Amino acid sequence: MSGPTPAQRARASIRSGAHTGHTSGLADEHVQGNVVILPASWANDFLRFCQRNPKPCPVLAVSEPGDPMLPALGHDIDIRTDVPRYRVWQHGELVDEPTDIGALWQADWVTFVLGCSFSFEQALLQAGVPLRHVAQQRNVAMYRTSVPTNAAGPFAGPLVVSMRPMRAEHAIRAVQITSRFPQVHGAPVHLGNPSLIGIGDLQQPDYGDPVDVLDDELPVFWACGVTPQAALAQAKPPICITHAPGAMLIADPLNSHIAAL
Amino acid sequence: MSGPTPAQRARASIRSGAHTGHTSGLADEHVQGNVVILPASWANDFLRFCQRNPKPCPVLAVSEPGDPMLPALGHDIDIRTDVPRYRVWQHGELVDEPTDIGALWQADWVTFVLGCSFSFEQALLQAGVPLRHVAQQRNVAMYRTSVPTNAAGPFAGPLVVSMRPMRAEHAIRAVQITSRFPQVHGAPVHLGNPSLIGIGDLQQPDYGDPVDVLDDELPVFWACGVTPQAALAQAKPPICITHAPGAMLIADPLNSHIAAL
Repeated sequence: MSGPTPAQRARASIRSGAHTGHTSGLADEHVQGNVVILPASWANDFLRFCQRNPKPCPVLAVSEPGDPMLPALGHDIDIRTDVPRYRVWQHGELVDEPTDIGALWQADWVTFVLGCSFSFEQALLQAGVPLRHVAQQRNVAMYRTSVPTNAAGPFAGPLVVSMRPMRAEHAIRAVQITSRFPQVHGAPVHLGNPSLIGIGDLQQPDYGDPVDVLDDELPVFWACGVTPQAALAQAKPPICITHAPGAMLIADPLNSHIAAL
Repeated sequence: MSGPTPAQRARASIRSGAHTGHTSGLADEHVQGNVVILPASWANDFLRFCQRNPKPCPVLAVSEPGDPMLPALGHDIDIRTDVPRYRVWQHGELVDEPTDIGALWQADWVTFVLGCSFSFEQALLQAGVPLRHVAQQRNVAMYRTSVPTNAAGPFAGPLVVSMRPMRAEHAIRAVQITSRFPQVHGAPVHLGNPSLIGIGDLQQPDYGDPVDVLDDELPVFWACGVTPQAALAQAKPPICITHAPGAMLIADPLNSHIAAL
């Protein structure tokens, strides 16, 4: 008999209400996911939006309508209790940040879990590629770009990217490493001159914290899981639940198991 | 009975003296190689130099001492006749450019064949990555850098790189594609700011032809097969034979067969 995995232990702590904050560094060999919950009448358009924008919206799992369980990511996962903190959106407005959504749950809700860059960041660090925002314990810097997503029904909006400054040799290594992880945003979408994707000032991110880019470094940009949140803000469904920023779902699969190569 | 391959037909034309020029575009699905021929007393140091600098000096084959045949690359290859044009170097000075070295051949000579970027350029073009120097029918631009090679015996000198200007999306794709070809220089060694590797002016290459870098492009740098020629110029062996620039040995293996993935 083996004991619970780090993912199971972390979820138990979250489910009990003991852990209500960020999940960065928690059970860090396990896949973490962005969470989006929508009524079934909105879910099909959202799934098509994800299919058409796989780099920002890589779908790890979709629940059965009304079923709060996600057996593909862990037999015991109950999405009503297993995220540390949720955000409740009504018509695109943030209305609450509860730690449990059991009282809100509706019989037609569908849960989407999308891949997250935490998985490839662990692989980068293990390969000796330094990540300044991790070393400085900040959130990664994120930017709305001039690159449009491919629309589906009411879902549209700009591609949002995360940026990590790197020396060229590490940028090249990072392309190699993140190409192995198509389920968690995959290879970068851009590197070098930020104005080519409509970013005016790297020191003014739209989300997260600014981070220095040194003279011998390039900014390297990856498609970001905030992209679907920007599309949700534009589509304004009557109700939508997401995770709170940084407070992800911790799933059973290991990061090392989702590598393509 | 199948007829001769494009590589065999090209070598027959070269052997007969009918083709004495560049091999770019000739039998272009087949691997082409840089050629270095040295007396056995110099060959061991040169092989160690290649082993210590695998990105600029990827060894495809080494002959038996005194044997002009290279069965690993084609059962009929005779290195005395099968390169379109040779360069003969004495004590580091270029003394002749014959099309046949049968009269010069010595019983202790060892042939090295090193991978060449023609193989990965074909893969890049097939993947839709444009190459300006190919479109403009120029030689690729090459530069001596401030990056030292790892010395072995008398062999030392700067890393020489080739440069191809690309938009960021193509630079990212090119890292993915050339990573598959470790035997022909592999992934880039640098991208972006050329001064970080000691290149002052991209418009003044040390070898080959200059090529424009547009405002929305990055220069992308690969380790180059001219690196061993720079090391030979520094080591000044009493006698050394190389191929003339662009006039490579055409081997039997297919580019697609040397991909690592």
